[in-house]
Amino acid sequence: MTGGTPYGRGGGRGTGTGWLNGDMSLDPEIAARLKRNPDGLVPAIAQQHDTGEVLMLAWMNDEALHRTLTTGRATYWSRSRGEFWVKGDTSGHVQHVKSVALDCDGDTILVRVDQVGAACHTGDRTCFDTGRLEMLG
Amino acid sequence: MTGGTPYGRGGGRGTGTGWLNGDMSLDPEIAARLKRNPDGLVPAIAQQHDTGEVLMLAWMNDEALHRTLTTGRATYWSRSRGEFWVKGDTSGHVQHVKSVALDCDGDTILVRVDQVGAACHTGDRTCFDTGRLEMLG
Repeated sequence: MTGGTPYGRGGGRGTGTGWLNGDMSLDPEIAARLKRNPDGLVPAIAQQHDTGEVLMLAWMNDEALHRTLTTGRATYWSRSRGEFWVKGDTSGHVQHVKSVALDCDGDTILVRVDQVGAACHTGDRTCFDTGRLEMLG
Repeated sequence: MTGGTPYGRGGGRGTGTGWLNGDMSLDPEIAARLKRNPDGLVPAIAQQHDTGEVLMLAWMNDEALHRTLTTGRATYWSRSRGEFWVKGDTSGHVQHVKSVALDCDGDTILVRVDQVGAACHTGDRTCFDTGRLEMLG
């Protein structure tokens, strides 16, 4: 069921009445700024808020961004599993969200977090720790 | 003309002989690790090397990564213009590359740079300076 029935506000998605009425929709003003890829996703950079470490890049759809803004837990869309991914729900390596920003053209999200433990599934602190490439110039 | 002719090495692309012979190809070992989107692109996060600021996100194909590694100038593929984009060639806001890393699964590049002036085309230092979203939790 979607919003906009003759029975008025609060019946479903997109009616702007918030979580108390089960509204899982992103603020339409934010949604209008997002530029999504053909799969409806936007890349989200996770950065440790105090050290500045770039931890990882994952992907958000509108609802993942909404959940991130409303729950304070970084929540992505797992492209491999095809489901929402609340970072740390399985591993314990939670990302507590400190701030979220869109870039100038709305096609990238920066999520500043306090990362518990390792951000990377390999156990490394960041996903870039072991991948340094040699400069050839 | 491609490499692998009976006339030996150095005749063209992919022969491993480098820029002096006009070789524009990425190291095959690096290329084998890259996971590209359907357009052949990988997201590249540009970070100021000393302050940790996340400056912007842009996109690289294999040759853009190769040029970045060999020239020391951050070089992207402009999706809007459909051409290579040597950051700063027009604006003067050059990115001098300090290091490059691939993430754990080869689908994101982290480029640590020394950014001259503004990274953002708006004149802001980073592309995220004005896009902060309100937390609703």
